Amino acid sequence: MADVFSISITPRHYETDGLGHINNVSLAGWFETARIRVMESLDGETGMMHWVLASIKIDFQDETFYGSDVTATITGMRPGNTSLIIDCQMTQDGRKTAFGRAVMVHLGELGGTPSPIPDQLRTSLADYPSAPD
Amino acid sequence: MADVFSISITPRHYETDGLGHINNVSLAGWFETARIRVMESLDGETGMMHWVLASIKIDFQDETFYGSDVTATITGMRPGNTSLIIDCQMTQDGRKTAFGRAVMVHLGELGGTPSPIPDQLRTSLADYPSAPD
Amino acid sequence: MADVFSISITPRHYETDGLGHINNVSLAGWFETARIRVMESLDGETGMMHWVLASIKIDFQDETFYGSDVTATITGMRPGNTSLIIDCQMTQDGRKTAFGRAVMVHLGELGGTPSPIPDQLRTSLADYPSAPD
Amino acid sequence: MADVFSISITPRHYETDGLGHINNVSLAGWFETARIRVMESLDGETGMMHWVLASIKIDFQDETFYGSDVTATITGMRPGNTSLIIDCQMTQDGRKTAFGRAVMVHLGELGGTPSPIPDQLRTSLADYPSAPD
Repeated sequence: MADVFSISITPRHYETDGLGHINNVSLAGWFETARIRVMESLDGETGMMHWVLASIKIDFQDETFYGSDVTATITGMRPGNTSLIIDCQMTQDGRKTAFGRAVMVHLGELGGTPSPIPDQLRTSLADYPSAPD
Repeated sequence: MADVFSISITPRHYETDGLGHINNVSLAGWFETARIRVMESLDGETGMMHWVLASIKIDFQDETFYGSDVTATITGMRPGNTSLIIDCQMTQDGRKTAFGRAVMVHLGELGGTPSPIPDQLRTSLADYPSAPD
Repeated sequence: MADVFSISITPRHYETDGLGHINNVSLAGWFETARIRVMESLDGETGMMHWVLASIKIDFQDETFYGSDVTATITGMRPGNTSLIIDCQMTQDGRKTAFGRAVMVHLGELGGTPSPIPDQLRTSLADYPSAPD
Repeated sequence: MADVFSISITPRHYETDGLGHINNVSLAGWFETARIRVMESLDGETGMMHWVLASIKIDFQDETFYGSDVTATITGMRPGNTSLIIDCQMTQDGRKTAFGRAVMVHLGELGGTPSPIPDQLRTSLADYPSAPD
C-alpha cells in the first residue's frame, strides 16, 4: 500500500472572510489543489488533462483559522469503469476541519467522451485505501 | 407561493481556468452568493449571521463559459428543526451547467449552538418549493 | 466624446476579509473586469487576446463594504505606440473607494511581440478622456 | 543586516487563467501573502492589525506558470513617519516574473488615524535593505 498522500497548505489572509475564519470558497480551492496534486503524482501533469470534475461534496466539520498550517490527506480512492472517487480530509492543529469527496470522469481525449481508466493508472490507484460507499 | 428567486451573474475573466472555462472554485463562490442573497431577502443581513454552512454539494452538469451571463435560481428549500437545505440551479444560454445543494444550520447566537429556525422565517421558507430528498 | 463607460459590481460575501471589508485582492479582480469589459466594447472578445498586462497600480482611497453596489467607471485612456493606459475609478454610495491604473501592451499576435495599436482601435480610444500623466 | 526574507509559493491550478498562466489577480494575493508574512515576522500577528494598505503597484515582468514553485523575496523596506514601503520580487525557475511595491500606513488603533511607526519596529525595519525611490 502506498504511503498516504498529503500536502500542507498555509492559509492566506485574503482567504479569511468577514467572520475571521477561512471561507468555504477557499476550501473548495484547497481540495482542488490536493486532488490535482495526487493525480499528477500518479498520472503526470499531462494525464491530468484527461479528467473532468463531475461533482464535489464538502462537509465543514470545524472552523479553519488563519495562522496555522492545514494538512490535506487523501484518505481513499475508488475507481469505477470511467469514474474515480477521491476522498480528502483536512486537519488543522489535530482537529478535523473539512472532508471532501470529488468524483472525476476519465476522458479518452481532451474534451472527449468518458473512457475506461487505463490499466497502468488503475494499478497505481489500487495502492490507495478504498473510499467507502 | 413566492416568485422564484434568481440572480444573474456575469462571469469574470479571472474566473476562467487554463482550459478556458469557469473553474469549479469560482462556481462554489457563485453558489454562496445565490444562497446568501436569498437568505438576506428572507431574513435580512443581520439574520444571515445566525447561520453556518454545514455542507455543500455541486454537480457539474455542463461547462460554463466566459462571455455570457449565468442565472442562479433557487429551486427548493427544505427546513428541518435547526437546519435548512437550499437547492440552486445554474443555467447559461438555456443549458443547465451546475446544480448545488447547501445545508446550513441555524445558531441561537453568533458562534453558538444549533437552535430552532424562528417561526417567522419558517413561514417565509414555506413559500418556496420543497427541496426533494 | 463617448459616453463614459461604467459597470456595476455587487460585492460577494466571500470577497470580504477578516476585518469585514472587501479585500484588496478582490478589488484587483474588479479592476480587471472593468478594463476587459471596456476593451471588449471597443475591440471585441477576440481583440482582447492581443493585449497583455504590463502593470497595475491601485490606490485604496476608502473602505469598500459588503451590501451595496460598486460602480467602476473608466475615467481615462491614453494610447502610446504599442501600449495603452486605462484609468478606472471605483465608487460606492458616492464615496471614492479605489482608483486603478493599468498599462497594457498590444501584441501583433497571441504571445507575440509588441505591435502598434491598430488605427481603427486608436480612433475609438480617442473618444475617451485622456488619462493624465 | 537581516537575512533576506522570502517565502515559497506553489501555484494552484485554479489560479491559472484561460491563457494557461497564473492570472494577475492571483499574483496580487501572493504579494499580500508575502508582505503580511514579513510584517508578522517583525511585528506579530496582532501588530499586523495596526496597518492598512494605501496602494499597490505590480509590474508583470514575465509569465508565471503552473507546475513550478515561485519565490517571493522582500527586496527592500522604507519607513516614513507613519507609512512603510515594502518591495517584493517574485521569481520562478530563475526568471523574474513580477515586482510589487506596497505602501502601508500605521494606525494608532484598529480603524484609527495614522500614527508614527513604533521605535522598536523601526529598529527591526532598519535591518532590511532600503527600498529605492
